[in-house]
Parts: sequence; structure tokens; C-alpha cells
Amino acid sequence: MTTDQPADAAAPRGPLAMIVGSGDYPLQLARIVTDKGERPYIAALDGAADPAAFGDGADIRTYRLGQLGSLLEELHRRGIVDIVMLGALPRPSFGSLRPEVSTLKYMPHFAKAFLGGDDHLLRGVVRFFEMQGFRVHGPAEIAPEMTAPRGALGRRQASAEQRAELERGFALLATLSPFDVGQAAILADHRVVAIEAAEGTDAMIRRVADLVARGRLKIGKGDGFLVKVPKTGQDLRVDMPAIGPDTLRNIAEAGLSGIGVRAGEVLVGDRAALGRQADELGLFVEGFA
Amino acid sequence: MTTDQPADAAAPRGPLAMIVGSGDYPLQLARIVTDKGERPYIAALDGAADPAAFGDGADIRTYRLGQLGSLLEELHRRGIVDIVMLGALPRPSFGSLRPEVSTLKYMPHFAKAFLGGDDHLLRGVVRFFEMQGFRVHGPAEIAPEMTAPRGALGRRQASAEQRAELERGFALLATLSPFDVGQAAILADHRVVAIEAAEGTDAMIRRVADLVARGRLKIGKGDGFLVKVPKTGQDLRVDMPAIGPDTLRNIAEAGLSGIGVRAGEVLVGDRAALGRQADELGLFVEGFA
Repeated sequence: MTTDQPADAAAPRGPLAMIVGSGDYPLQLARIVTDKGERPYIAALDGAADPAAFGDGADIRTYRLGQLGSLLEELHRRGIVDIVMLGALPRPSFGSLRPEVSTLKYMPHFAKAFLGGDDHLLRGVVRFFEMQGFRVHGPAEIAPEMTAPRGALGRRQASAEQRAELERGFALLATLSPFDVGQAAILADHRVVAIEAAEGTDAMIRRVADLVARGRLKIGKGDGFLVKVPKTGQDLRVDMPAIGPDTLRNIAEAGLSGIGVRAGEVLVGDRAALGRQADELGLFVEGFA
Repeated sequence: MTTDQPADAAAPRGPLAMIVGSGDYPLQLARIVTDKGERPYIAALDGAADPAAFGDGADIRTYRLGQLGSLLEELHRRGIVDIVMLGALPRPSFGSLRPEVSTLKYMPHFAKAFLGGDDHLLRGVVRFFEMQGFRVHGPAEIAPEMTAPRGALGRRQASAEQRAELERGFALLATLSPFDVGQAAILADHRVVAIEAAEGTDAMIRRVADLVARGRLKIGKGDGFLVKVPKTGQDLRVDMPAIGPDTLRNIAEAGLSGIGVRAGEVLVGDRAALGRQADELGLFVEGFA
């Protein structure tokens, strides 16, 4: 394969490489792909992914970020065009990459991407792989069963009144989208009590819990909701909003009653497990079209 | 004066009563009114305002919230129709009011107001005084010199580039207004990094300072701004957004460069003092039409 040659986007998908960081999502994705009879090549990012967790049969190798050149060579050698990236990666310092010689030529591209925010960096990574002739797939495309379905994950559903509050939350987030902010918000006491910006969803939930603990905010029974959606223009291939067990635990601890997300556009990982946890915590977790 | 008889809104203002809580703003307002040759009647709310701070010559009495009946009688006795309310008041528990007998009849009105949020309570208080025949004035109406003027308070002004960021912040807050949220936001690194909801402006500034301290957010020199405006429909008579010495100190500590507010619609208190503080801290504080 020659570089700077975009792959044919319409061509059927071939063998898959997974470039993975930390967390459960990469493990779930590998399991789903394997269960469907594929054997993905897994590039575990050093310091983030745990290769042992993928099991003995996995076709896996650990790469430092500075070994990008080796990774590309291996993918080319195997004729792999289709890749998916998933999992958390601590933002590395530019100096700590220790690039191997074959990686040095790619550094200027990333140096530029590093100067912007996280979104900018992620877009830079996608563009880089596309320029090298790869097709970058989103996890939702490879495994739609990892995203929120339409409807409730557990037994509880939002009531009509709760649903109206959630819709107000979705409308708020849609309004914020042109400002490239507002992936999540919390509504309680019939008003917007928190909007997420740079701090992240978990920090926002903790802030609300803290306001409640200090008597600054009262949340009645059945009141208080997290809404979470992608921002318009967010690249769902590498930057998909997600909720998981920690989100549910934090929501319950803050005294909130449920979570509303955009169906198909928010990662939930293991739907059944999250539904069981929602039931145990007395929460609703529901996807809306 | 009979009750439930609205005062003539167009009539010229008569002698003024100030119902005051804690903070410097009530003192400044009293000084401005007195300097213009008036002698306002000051009702200092017990546990919030310090009567001694108003000086020996002040016509002042302390009232518990439960002494609303006595306060109304005194205002009627003096023929006072025009009132202004200013200063902070810790949200009282409904049980701690210890109402005197003459206040008991007013309690149902406030019991209802207490059940809503702060905005709801403030609107209830205004409506109550209007129903009793009073005219409620805003501090900006009595002393426009306490609000942000158009232009810079100190020597520094926002550059054209900074101005563009501030305008983006004002647009963001205007967009949020229909959702009854978004009195303030912080922009840095060419994006929206914090939006205020229930936590208040100071908590939002500290959050940004914390993100910077933990390396989650980088703010370059000359970058990073607070924007603050009233929400659409906010009753500026009893609920005016404000910035003060603490705001400027927090902004400087967070590594931000300046503050943009809506001229005439945000309280700044002592313009000259705040301008000097802005100069000392190297910040711009600027009002925009």
C-alpha cells in the first residue's frame, strides 16, 4: 500500500486492527468481534492497555506511542486497511514519546496536533491514519450493540414528566452545540443545575452531589437527571460520549434518578450489565431517538 | 395607605427605605443616596447587615425576618412608598423566622414562595411588597453609578481578538437564557471551558483554576475571560448579577486575563476602586452595550 492514498470507503471491510487504550470497552469490543468469528489484530498502547486481559488466544502486541512506525509497518505487512481505536489514553507529554527512528518522520504531524485541544488531537490522529491509507471505523459501527439502544436498559423507564425534563435537557445541549460545548447537563428541581464544559461528566456529577450535601440544592425523590449526547460535529469514530458503571454509581450517589442519552450515539458497553446495575440502584437509563 | 393597592408607578419617587443584607453594596448605596442629600430609612436584616457600619447618623433599625409586620407598620407610619432591597441574605429556614403576631398573616404568601428556587422566592418578595402598595426599585435605578459603565473600569482594555472571544461568550449566554441558566461562563484556549449553573460564579472560577492546576487545561498569556450578564427575564430590582473585589481576585488567581459584562446591567459597586484593583492585578474589566 502506498501512503497518502485514501482507502476506498465503499469497499467491504477486511481484517480489523484494534488500537486500544485502557478500560473495559476495548475488551468488550474484542469479545464481540471474536464472537462473530473474526480474529482482530490488537495493538495495545503501552501504559494504558493490559494485554493479558485480552486472553491467551488474542493476536496482540504492545506498542509505545513512539513505535508508530513499527505499528504501521506491521499493519501494512498484514494487509490491514480497517482500524478502530478505543479506550482511554493518558495525554502523553510530547517529550516522553521516545520515538523510534521509523516514527520520527511522522512527528511533525503530531506536534501540530498536540498544540490544540483534545478534539484537535483526535482529529489529527484520524487524519493521519487516513492519509496513510487506512479506514478508521467507529466502535459503534463495528459493534452497535455497545451503544445505548432506544428504550430503557433496565426495568425502569422515565415517566412522562421525567421525559419532558429530559427533552428540555436535550434541547439545551443542542442549543450549546454550535459553541462546541455541552456534551452533558444535569436537570433537577425543574431547572438546569449543571452544564459540562472542560471538567468532564464525572466532575460535573460530583459538583451536583456537593451542592446537595451542602444544602445549596434540594433534589426531590424521582427528580434529577443526567442527559448526555454527542456534540454536533463530534467525530464518533474516535470521540464517542460514554456512560458506564462509574457514571451510574455517581448519579445514584448524587441522589439523581436517571440518565437519558441519544440512542446509538452514546457508548454504554455491556447493555445487560448496565441494565442490571440500573435496576439495583433504582435508576432509569434510557436511550431516545 | 390601603393594602392591595398598587402604587402609581409614574409618580415621582418619595422618601426611600433600604432593606439591606450583608456586604459592601448596601453601604455604598446608602453613601450615594446620602451624598445626594437624602436620608434613607434603613431596615437592617438581623444576622446579615451590620447596623454600626452605616455610621452614627444613619436612620436605621434592625429587623428579624419574622418582624415583617413591624417593618410594614413603620414604613406606612412614615408614608414611605419607595423601597430598594440590596445585599446578601443567608437563605433562612422557614422554621427559624419566629414570626411576631403581626407577621403571621403574611406567612402563607412566603410559605408558597419558599417552595420554589431562589428566583421564585425573590419574585415572591417583590410581588408581596407591590401588593402592599410599595414601589420596588432596583439599585441600578437608585444609583446607576454602582453598575458597570460602557468601557473599561481600569487602564486595560480588551484587544480586538479578546473582544471577539467575549462576544462569543455573550452569544453563548444569550443562547442559554431561554433555559433560565447561564449568568456567566469562562472562555479560554479558544473554547468554552466553564458554564455557570447552580454552583455560582465563584465556584465556577475555582473549578477552572483547579483544572489549570491539575494540568487539565492550559491558559496562555492574555487568554481566558469571564463573561457575566443577567439572564433574560431576571428581575434586576432584586437579583442583579454582580462582580466585586473577590471576583477579580479569583479571576487573577485562576490565571485569566479579564472580565466582560453587560454595561448598566451588572453591579460593580465602587467603580474607581474596582478599576484600581484591575490595574494592580493586570486585568481588564470592561462593560459592553
